[in-house]
Amino acid sequence: MPWTPALRLDSSADLPLFLQIARAVTDDVQRGRLRPGDRLPGSRSLAASVGVHRNTVLAAYDELAAEGWVTTTAGSGTRVSFDLPERPVTPSAPTTDRLGFPLRPFSPTHPVEEPVPGPGPAPFLLNGGLPDLARVPSAELARALRRLLRRDPARLLAYGDPAGSRALRASLATMLRARRGLACTVDSLVVTRGSQMGLYLLAQALLRPGDRVLVEEFGYAPAWEAFRQAGAELVPTPVDRDGLDVDAVGRELESGRCAAIYTTPHHQFPTMAVMSAPRRLRLLDLARVHRVPIIEDDYDNEFHYVGEPVLPLAAVDRAGVVVYVGTLSKVLAPGLRIGWVAGPRELVDQLVVRRRFVDRQGDQAVESAVAELIDDGTVPRHVRRMRRIYARRQEVMAEALRRHLGARVQLEVPSGGLALWPRLDGVDVDGWSARARRRGVVFAPGSVFSFGRRPSSHARIGFGGIDEDRIDEAVRRLAEVLDG
Amino acid sequence: MPWTPALRLDSSADLPLFLQIARAVTDDVQRGRLRPGDRLPGSRSLAASVGVHRNTVLAAYDELAAEGWVTTTAGSGTRVSFDLPERPVTPSAPTTDRLGFPLRPFSPTHPVEEPVPGPGPAPFLLNGGLPDLARVPSAELARALRRLLRRDPARLLAYGDPAGSRALRASLATMLRARRGLACTVDSLVVTRGSQMGLYLLAQALLRPGDRVLVEEFGYAPAWEAFRQAGAELVPTPVDRDGLDVDAVGRELESGRCAAIYTTPHHQFPTMAVMSAPRRLRLLDLARVHRVPIIEDDYDNEFHYVGEPVLPLAAVDRAGVVVYVGTLSKVLAPGLRIGWVAGPRELVDQLVVRRRFVDRQGDQAVESAVAELIDDGTVPRHVRRMRRIYARRQEVMAEALRRHLGARVQLEVPSGGLALWPRLDGVDVDGWSARARRRGVVFAPGSVFSFGRRPSSHARIGFGGIDEDRIDEAVRRLAEVLDG
Repeated sequence: MPWTPALRLDSSADLPLFLQIARAVTDDVQRGRLRPGDRLPGSRSLAASVGVHRNTVLAAYDELAAEGWVTTTAGSGTRVSFDLPERPVTPSAPTTDRLGFPLRPFSPTHPVEEPVPGPGPAPFLLNGGLPDLARVPSAELARALRRLLRRDPARLLAYGDPAGSRALRASLATMLRARRGLACTVDSLVVTRGSQMGLYLLAQALLRPGDRVLVEEFGYAPAWEAFRQAGAELVPTPVDRDGLDVDAVGRELESGRCAAIYTTPHHQFPTMAVMSAPRRLRLLDLARVHRVPIIEDDYDNEFHYVGEPVLPLAAVDRAGVVVYVGTLSKVLAPGLRIGWVAGPRELVDQLVVRRRFVDRQGDQAVESAVAELIDDGTVPRHVRRMRRIYARRQEVMAEALRRHLGARVQLEVPSGGLALWPRLDGVDVDGWSARARRRGVVFAPGSVFSFGRRPSSHARIGFGGIDEDRIDEAVRRLAEVLDG
Repeated sequence: MPWTPALRLDSSADLPLFLQIARAVTDDVQRGRLRPGDRLPGSRSLAASVGVHRNTVLAAYDELAAEGWVTTTAGSGTRVSFDLPERPVTPSAPTTDRLGFPLRPFSPTHPVEEPVPGPGPAPFLLNGGLPDLARVPSAELARALRRLLRRDPARLLAYGDPAGSRALRASLATMLRARRGLACTVDSLVVTRGSQMGLYLLAQALLRPGDRVLVEEFGYAPAWEAFRQAGAELVPTPVDRDGLDVDAVGRELESGRCAAIYTTPHHQFPTMAVMSAPRRLRLLDLARVHRVPIIEDDYDNEFHYVGEPVLPLAAVDRAGVVVYVGTLSKVLAPGLRIGWVAGPRELVDQLVVRRRFVDRQGDQAVESAVAELIDDGTVPRHVRRMRRIYARRQEVMAEALRRHLGARVQLEVPSGGLALWPRLDGVDVDGWSARARRRGVVFAPGSVFSFGRRPSSHARIGFGGIDEDRIDEAVRRLAEVLDG
């Protein structure tokens, strides 16, 4: 008896009817129900038997012929191709549940703070160290994007320089020379997808499996995971009110197995400590003597409220040991994914070579638009404005914490940054954070920034993303749930 | 005698005067010309001696105090801090030429075709397999971007899902189910920065240093380099008019050291061969038996001119061995950097975990805008329109090659793709390509797609980016310079 497809056509399915018929045939070939040389029903009879228009069946057969499953000859109609292999592939429906090969699993060992809030009533977001995204000049950005895409679509939509838009590199290099004292040119700078890609590329270019990397604890877990993906072993190094403990760094470097030092000297993440000048010089000297690169993550240079921002290590580096990583995630917005690495030309060239095969290039339209907003003064204006706003919010937040938490909180107001790092002795901060989240206030407990999520008596209270007039209510709720 | 700075102030420099003064002080501290405890000149006298306003000197001293280089006390004026280290850091100007630490160099071993033309008169670009960027709906894209950035700036500019915009994953999953027969959901798909990032992440998730990866020769070098960055050893495998030589694959798999198979079965890159159905089934079966993943790069599914596009291997995979990589680089434009990987859920989850620490996330605004253009029919319309245009250009290009190169060229017109792969026996194609470039016609010699850039009698002649009415002139020039 002639083959008839085990067919339940579903006209509501995404897959067109003719493809559903074609799949039914290939499924049966693979199940062995159809064998090479078997004749398929004529298009009329099949159309009748499954209740579709004949053209649908013809389309299915054309598809099958195009894929080589069947051959149609004048005399003998449509047959399953003779040159198909006898042994069928494992019969079963297509699936995305089965994994037919081994993986090389990577699992983050450190919790990453989730800036995305849980469900609940309009939450107060005091987490993520986020800037005020409602005040970003997004209209100017959208206009610049539209203008550029109209003026020069073919160039912006084509392949470009893996080092990033030359216009943006020029704007950034000028800014880094003028505001941060770096000896930086368009060619000693690579634009990356946020500082994260800069850190990732550096890990790939600097680290071999088994290398030890000095990191700060408390510190920035996403950087740690980038180092771990390169196979590095992390060496947590303490920080205090003067920043990274450089004596501990010295001892580790003596061990000779350290391949890099990762630090956030300006506003230490998350404690906001500013590294002291003596430590800066000692650190530079240690790196020079041991020929170990310092990865300086200056993720938040601009929002410094007491005097001028401290110049980066990279500005006083004379030995070519500092690699400077920056970002516009705080200046503008993390969603733009614009960061950079500035450093010795040879290193930067190497990062560009590797980056080309990671994602080929950045977003040329966004990069060009941001360059315009820097050059026409929009971004500098935004920074000046936000610095005033954030300085004020820092004050208000500090007052509110002292008012509502009183003697329970120990708080040193740092000279910059978008978050405070209060200490609450005898408080289960993890539990407090969980209770606060249920009350609509999201903040990160200190444990999130520690190794192996060790309990901490610190909390990270951000104020960048909350309006001044909502701060008191947020802190009032925090106080309410302080004790279970 | 009191210290005076070795100062050549440059009011035209990027670095503000007060910072120039501050740097002069720190330089001299590091040179040992200034020692801990040394008194600095009074602001008035220094201002007079270097010819600046006193406030400039005061700003410099404030900066130095903020950085901890100096301390200012009522009685004794401004002194170099006592707690600075005695041993100065190597004295010399800041530089980006010096590299003070070892690198882990990566050098591509395969030439990568440069889509960017050399200098010269308005060139005819027959290279890069580029689509027609002048016809991309960039105005619609710009409008969608602007609308989205106005409607929802805070969300689009914030942190988001490393797997990509949910809206775009939904649009792509629907497209892959309906047009390509994949069993694909929003959760078995990760949006990547072009197919390149998909290939890179797969290499990281699948390969260990020393693993062997089967690749096609001729083939796609940027994928090879992504595998090499993961430490893989490439095993070039021949292709013919039926695509990848599956018997050769079987022999290699028997050796047991092969960790992945990379193939472009639909329009083999760069030969455009369509893999035959028997080979498809054999390849799937080999992968299933040896538990080796097939990385199916379907970089150009839509532009198929003879019948329907052949369904991907992923559509008939029953064993969970196919990983499907796709891109919008041909459908829309490479500059959008939108690609994806669809595959077993466990693999996709692993890619998302790793991607988070590579660049955190894609461009949410662009991803959302493209999703809108897919859902509102703009992209499907564009594809239908361009398919007609490209089919016609393919015809015209083939005719022109035959007309101007006559018997010198052997040409099989493939069933799809944006380029032809003519063969010219006895022609030094590398030399021909170089001469053509000087005549303003850019195309890639076959050697670019071979291992170790072996000479080839093939050329890759793209027609996606050149208007129909310019094709004849381009080929006329090619013919002129065919023989040195």
